[in-house]
Amino acid sequence: MQELEERIQREGTVKPGNVLKVDAFLNHQCDVTLFDHMGAAWAEHFAGRTITKILTIEASGIGIACVAARHFGGVPVVFAKKAQSINLDGDQYTTTVYSFTKQKEFPVIVAKKYLNAGDHVLLIDDFLANGKALRGLIDLCESAGAVVEGIGIAVEKGFQGGGDKLRGEGYDVDSLAIVESMDAETGDIEFRR
Amino acid sequence: MQELEERIQREGTVKPGNVLKVDAFLNHQCDVTLFDHMGAAWAEHFAGRTITKILTIEASGIGIACVAARHFGGVPVVFAKKAQSINLDGDQYTTTVYSFTKQKEFPVIVAKKYLNAGDHVLLIDDFLANGKALRGLIDLCESAGAVVEGIGIAVEKGFQGGGDKLRGEGYDVDSLAIVESMDAETGDIEFRR
Repeated sequence: MQELEERIQREGTVKPGNVLKVDAFLNHQCDVTLFDHMGAAWAEHFAGRTITKILTIEASGIGIACVAARHFGGVPVVFAKKAQSINLDGDQYTTTVYSFTKQKEFPVIVAKKYLNAGDHVLLIDDFLANGKALRGLIDLCESAGAVVEGIGIAVEKGFQGGGDKLRGEGYDVDSLAIVESMDAETGDIEFRR
Repeated sequence: MQELEERIQREGTVKPGNVLKVDAFLNHQCDVTLFDHMGAAWAEHFAGRTITKILTIEASGIGIACVAARHFGGVPVVFAKKAQSINLDGDQYTTTVYSFTKQKEFPVIVAKKYLNAGDHVLLIDDFLANGKALRGLIDLCESAGAVVEGIGIAVEKGFQGGGDKLRGEGYDVDSLAIVESMDAETGDIEFRR
């Protein structure tokens, strides 16, 4: 998606340790017009599929998923939680995910009543690197007996391999920008063609 | 807002300890069509004001704020973060907030470059009870020299007093449903008229 690649080139910064900061428009400050265009792009890619629910994970995926949902007929968005809360009770599906950006393990939790065997789920997240967060969401869907119809990602760090591994397993992963290489010293960012 | 009150009556549940669960449509599963109507309601209420930015706090405020932003000309949404992350670096405004639902203190952090002296800010959150989270966001705005133009809340627990205290201090607080009383034994929920 050209618009997203241009924003990454213009406003993204590469930091040591494979960190690509895009907090100017994606995951701290949010450009909701861009999110809307991202939703339209995913809707075009997944047009042949029945999507009954969008599943994402707190926190950065929520805004993107909620804005994108309009392009999928306003289906419900469920966001998996990363910590126990007194707002979570009753039966839950839980798994564990290692967060690269927070550098620790998190529980990932969804209430059973919001993820069901009849659901055809689109997973949405801001980043895909090694794929650990997505594995957690896929685990939750498998526990519920829900079908993962596709995976919509804003920025995939292609050189970390998580996306290609998921594609190899048959998942339909639509990443709107795939970074093939990036260099913290020069700031150069190359996208996959 | 009648639509929101009806949803709370129909799908909300009252739990002991002043907990109102609305996770079927507001803060775990998200009804984005309802969020859109909420955004329209806030836009009508705050029509006379110049809003250059929406500030919310992770995680439950993000989806609401991002969907609502369309009704404010697509202004940027910034979400304050509740924990340090390697995606946060450089100068930050920080404060501390006690979370009722998580029952512990959190740092609340926003990067200085995304909150500025020229900003006219609408604060948005899903819940207002004692007002501690909003105090944190107001602190951040004061640190930045940004003007708080108004506060848009989905559900205010009026009996906990946080909203009326803020109104007494001159803040324009628009809560779309104000719960005046609720009863965990009977499940009764009364709204302010």
